[in-house]
Amino acid sequence: MNVVIENYTRTDTKIASDLGRYGVATIHEAQGRKGLLAPHMRPIYRGAHISGTAITVSVPPCDNWMIHVAAEICMEGDIMVVAPTSCSDAGYFGDLLGTLLMSRGVRGLVIDAGVRDVVDLEKMGFPVWSKCISAQGTVKETLGSVNVPVVCGGQTIHPGDVIVADDDGVVVVERQEAADVLTKSAQREEKEAGIRKRYAAGELGLDMNNMRPQLAAKGLKYPDRKEPTSK
Amino acid sequence: MNVVIENYTRTDTKIASDLGRYGVATIHEAQGRKGLLAPHMRPIYRGAHISGTAITVSVPPCDNWMIHVAAEICMEGDIMVVAPTSCSDAGYFGDLLGTLLMSRGVRGLVIDAGVRDVVDLEKMGFPVWSKCISAQGTVKETLGSVNVPVVCGGQTIHPGDVIVADDDGVVVVERQEAADVLTKSAQREEKEAGIRKRYAAGELGLDMNNMRPQLAAKGLKYPDRKEPTSK
Amino acid sequence: MNVVIENYTRTDTKIASDLGRYGVATIHEAQGRKGLLAPHMRPIYRGAHISGTAITVSVPPCDNWMIHVAAEICMEGDIMVVAPTSCSDAGYFGDLLGTLLMSRGVRGLVIDAGVRDVVDLEKMGFPVWSKCISAQGTVKETLGSVNVPVVCGGQTIHPGDVIVADDDGVVVVERQEAADVLTKSAQREEKEAGIRKRYAAGELGLDMNNMRPQLAAKGLKYPDRKEPTSK
Amino acid sequence: MNVVIENYTRTDTKIASDLGRYGVATIHEAQGRKGLLAPHMRPIYRGAHISGTAITVSVPPCDNWMIHVAAEICMEGDIMVVAPTSCSDAGYFGDLLGTLLMSRGVRGLVIDAGVRDVVDLEKMGFPVWSKCISAQGTVKETLGSVNVPVVCGGQTIHPGDVIVADDDGVVVVERQEAADVLTKSAQREEKEAGIRKRYAAGELGLDMNNMRPQLAAKGLKYPDRKEPTSK
Amino acid sequence: MNVVIENYTRTDTKIASDLGRYGVATIHEAQGRKGLLAPHMRPIYRGAHISGTAITVSVPPCDNWMIHVAAEICMEGDIMVVAPTSCSDAGYFGDLLGTLLMSRGVRGLVIDAGVRDVVDLEKMGFPVWSKCISAQGTVKETLGSVNVPVVCGGQTIHPGDVIVADDDGVVVVERQEAADVLTKSAQREEKEAGIRKRYAAGELGLDMNNMRPQLAAKGLKYPDRKEPTSK
Amino acid sequence: MNVVIENYTRTDTKIASDLGRYGVATIHEAQGRKGLLAPHMRPIYRGAHISGTAITVSVPPCDNWMIHVAAEICMEGDIMVVAPTSCSDAGYFGDLLGTLLMSRGVRGLVIDAGVRDVVDLEKMGFPVWSKCISAQGTVKETLGSVNVPVVCGGQTIHPGDVIVADDDGVVVVERQEAADVLTKSAQREEKEAGIRKRYAAGELGLDMNNMRPQLAAKGLKYPDRKEPTSK
Repeated sequence: MNVVIENYTRTDTKIASDLGRYGVATIHEAQGRKGLLAPHMRPIYRGAHISGTAITVSVPPCDNWMIHVAAEICMEGDIMVVAPTSCSDAGYFGDLLGTLLMSRGVRGLVIDAGVRDVVDLEKMGFPVWSKCISAQGTVKETLGSVNVPVVCGGQTIHPGDVIVADDDGVVVVERQEAADVLTKSAQREEKEAGIRKRYAAGELGLDMNNMRPQLAAKGLKYPDRKEPTSK
Repeated sequence: MNVVIENYTRTDTKIASDLGRYGVATIHEAQGRKGLLAPHMRPIYRGAHISGTAITVSVPPCDNWMIHVAAEICMEGDIMVVAPTSCSDAGYFGDLLGTLLMSRGVRGLVIDAGVRDVVDLEKMGFPVWSKCISAQGTVKETLGSVNVPVVCGGQTIHPGDVIVADDDGVVVVERQEAADVLTKSAQREEKEAGIRKRYAAGELGLDMNNMRPQLAAKGLKYPDRKEPTSK
Repeated sequence: MNVVIENYTRTDTKIASDLGRYGVATIHEAQGRKGLLAPHMRPIYRGAHISGTAITVSVPPCDNWMIHVAAEICMEGDIMVVAPTSCSDAGYFGDLLGTLLMSRGVRGLVIDAGVRDVVDLEKMGFPVWSKCISAQGTVKETLGSVNVPVVCGGQTIHPGDVIVADDDGVVVVERQEAADVLTKSAQREEKEAGIRKRYAAGELGLDMNNMRPQLAAKGLKYPDRKEPTSK
Repeated sequence: MNVVIENYTRTDTKIASDLGRYGVATIHEAQGRKGLLAPHMRPIYRGAHISGTAITVSVPPCDNWMIHVAAEICMEGDIMVVAPTSCSDAGYFGDLLGTLLMSRGVRGLVIDAGVRDVVDLEKMGFPVWSKCISAQGTVKETLGSVNVPVVCGGQTIHPGDVIVADDDGVVVVERQEAADVLTKSAQREEKEAGIRKRYAAGELGLDMNNMRPQLAAKGLKYPDRKEPTSK
Repeated sequence: MNVVIENYTRTDTKIASDLGRYGVATIHEAQGRKGLLAPHMRPIYRGAHISGTAITVSVPPCDNWMIHVAAEICMEGDIMVVAPTSCSDAGYFGDLLGTLLMSRGVRGLVIDAGVRDVVDLEKMGFPVWSKCISAQGTVKETLGSVNVPVVCGGQTIHPGDVIVADDDGVVVVERQEAADVLTKSAQREEKEAGIRKRYAAGELGLDMNNMRPQLAAKGLKYPDRKEPTSK
Repeated sequence: MNVVIENYTRTDTKIASDLGRYGVATIHEAQGRKGLLAPHMRPIYRGAHISGTAITVSVPPCDNWMIHVAAEICMEGDIMVVAPTSCSDAGYFGDLLGTLLMSRGVRGLVIDAGVRDVVDLEKMGFPVWSKCISAQGTVKETLGSVNVPVVCGGQTIHPGDVIVADDDGVVVVERQEAADVLTKSAQREEKEAGIRKRYAAGELGLDMNNMRPQLAAKGLKYPDRKEPTSK
């Protein structure tokens, strides 16, 4: 059955926006190394960094009709997540749909398929993370669903989850965990700032994290050293 | 038999050049959604947008001899299209051949294989759409043919057809249809300008194209709405 | 057995650095068309061009512990080469490790897997050639080895070999051949400068290299010519 | 956090087993064309056809420790579903683990990674659907989870869902829908038997489904016919 | 425009059938090493070897409606060739359509996409060469064309051309060249029988084809031989 | 420089043959989880299991001339290992070359490219592990080398190393380590026989290897258990 779900719970707006202060790698780590979409999801231009709540669109292969349906219920702060039900590299989205979504406050698109008009999308400042760039047209013949859970880039995404995307890729944060992940991301970033300073000063991770005994215990050999682990 | 065909009919120069005013996505749509090369054909640098008539080169794998042969019969306004007879990711073309072709008025290269010296090619302003970037050398041992029909990026290309390429990819327009496609591209662009304005103003595709009755007829449900399609 | 080899012979520093004057394609040709890593090894940002001697790191899949171990023995002028023992697209390296390696004079990273924090790495000016960009975290649980021969991008790389990398990709030069390859690269570049000038002036490769008799001997036909090879 | 969930609801045993009477294609259709795992999930030998309830195992890349953990809580009628948290083609499973699982009544394995000892697994009659065949060893160092939802072959799978696998691939049926899908599969098979008979007798789908008017309405042309649709 | 072409010229029936006496590799060689479809086109079961004339079907992605349209005009001796207009791995064809086509004398299917019901198709003896095996359903919503030239597996195929397929893959022979290719295939097979006998008797290709002088001329060195080429 | 090395040290014949008693997975484990070729190296038919010493052939892409050169110096007990210098899926080898190599006692072929005439090769009982099956012809124009180290399937292989191949794939054992690996393989197989018996009897790996304390120490939780690790 094909449905459009309108009553779903978005992650708190401020939390979703604040998560955008942190990079995808930081958030992925802060939430216990999960939620990262597959590395084939690449930005169509470099330098964009967005966060927002997912509006999910399950589309038939090579059919973008449901993007129009979803557009009606988009809100300021949304990121659209589009997943075809079968592998496809057609171009489901271009500058016209980008214009439509921007007018409704959508912050960007994550699509496990192709996108086109990338020059115009970059000029407009509408960022997209996609599997490929392709001008191949799609049709409007078959129904899909809006705001059902989808698998995109190998991750299950629920409507209302937080999406963060930057040049490293795309990560999803479950709504229930978003506040916690925000706190942990801030902590991680602070901690990393300290590590960065020490690394820049020439300190080794081996010493900072006292790794030498563990390495020796696992059996690592330094055949060219007289006194292997106490250098 | 390996041949070099010199007497073939190029698409009218002005039509071929004028098609370059339109993007690949527009032309692909204008000609009925055909002729688009596969999305693995990517530009070696962003921002180039060219059109011209195809000079086709069928090359043995890892052998670029026939590019030299083809160079002799290139003309101002040509785009060279190179297709190996077996899958290859070697680098058949670099800045030297780029210099040679530019001196003869060739506008760019489309190659279903690899290219090298991409820094120099970008500096020279000689655009290339290729399957990959690779410095792997090729030989000059085995014959191929020039200006026979080739399959490049999954499309059949005849010598004299129009090639248009931009950041969205590459499209081929058959010579016989070029004038018609030029007209339709202009019409499409004009129409899209109108749609863009209405989308920017917040109008929905659902309303602009009166999609709601069709969606309802196909069975789309809005379980959270009291009166589903008349919102 | 997992080992860290510290006493190995680096290619002469000046030779390794001087090879960086030449592009990857030139060096690949100068050494007889060998040593080129596979074209999936791409720079995370355009415009970097480095050379140095390889410090090789064989890592278990999704485990970056040995990069910390290798960091201790890095020297000014090194390029780190990382090869997982099984196919992986996780992100083994980010801006923190980049900071650590830069503080030790490492010039860049070549990794047959993923890398993250690419925005920061570009800002820092620490270039990376990798299979993909991925924020996926790795662990520190299993040993590997440092400065054993590794296969990276389909090429065997020994510690101390010269690595040169630019926008065309990555090439390895064996230590024993580096001086000779440097000489030949200079010769090749000089020769190419001459060819470039002649091509720019409109001369054909067909004539410059007297290819017509060979082509005719192999059976190439010009059906549209009256006197095929003497045009 | 890494957990092993033991109290979860399996689909009714009889329903799960009965679904195995139908092919993957039939079930995929019967449940509205969803739930099919990606086509890279292939059987290691031809001719197996199984159904059962999913016990899901989320494993770190190249680490099969959690398969041992999951083995303890396997039951007669289970099919083990293994999904690494990052892309991997190592061999997580061989004839020893096959022996262990068979002794506990497990009917087969579905793994989005590699498997080894395929000769022995075939001899034992323990079927596996996997991404590849690979003898690459894995470690036992890092935790994962058992019976959490996983994404395998691009589909979200919950513990207790029904898995059906045959030479066409693998399909998941959600527990809540299993009874309904069983009924619809039977209906579909019956219907298809009728169609098969009519096709075998030479009837056309065009006539059986009265497609000609629709085709004409969409604009299909038969230029070589005098009276196109009434042949 | 979407068309169904019914009046086209099939290659002579006897020639098309007789070509099936020779393997794909032999025919590919006999016609000058062309016409071979890409190696991703694999048989769904081993041991089939067919030849016939192509009926070509250009289908929209994930839509198999036109296969029904094409079925009406199939004849004894046809091989159906199906090419989606955009990359797809759905399952366009199963045992029902196989039954339909068999009833009309079609000898097999070549499809640059997926196929399902492979167990039944093997039982029926209806061979298929496809890009993948997939149970993913397709729709009947959008028109395509029958008997227009298509690109399938990287080769242009015209209706009426000869298709030969065996465990090595699929080759197309242009109608105009079929008689000549048949003659040359017979000659090649005869010649190969002679070579096979001599190889089996221990003769070397080096001697049989007098390769040693050429190898020496190209510079091949045997550093361990005192008198390199006269052994 | 292109060379044919004839004086190289083969692994002891008996050791090389005896290693063939063990499966690829066993040998890969016995030598410390190294030497396994990438999983894209697949047998052209199931059920072959061979071992022997490597004669290595470095070939230009799409050129099989050096296989003829190598044939002259093949010996009883050899396995030919062919690696193109650039990625290729052409068919370098068929039943004629299979006949030639069999007549010289070669036990099989490992090739990081394509092979053809697979029906005949299976009938002859000449096993091949390859990247693909392809009838695409190759030429005899450009030199390569015989018995230099090559990278095949991502592993460095030296002439005289042991190759073992079965349905799990291909593994290389360095000559210097072969005797030791043979001993360890026997030990491993014996050990595995014991484990297999205990698994078949229903014992768990968790208990056999006393994994519970480690799992608990790493933090694994059993939320549904009252007393988690002592069940």
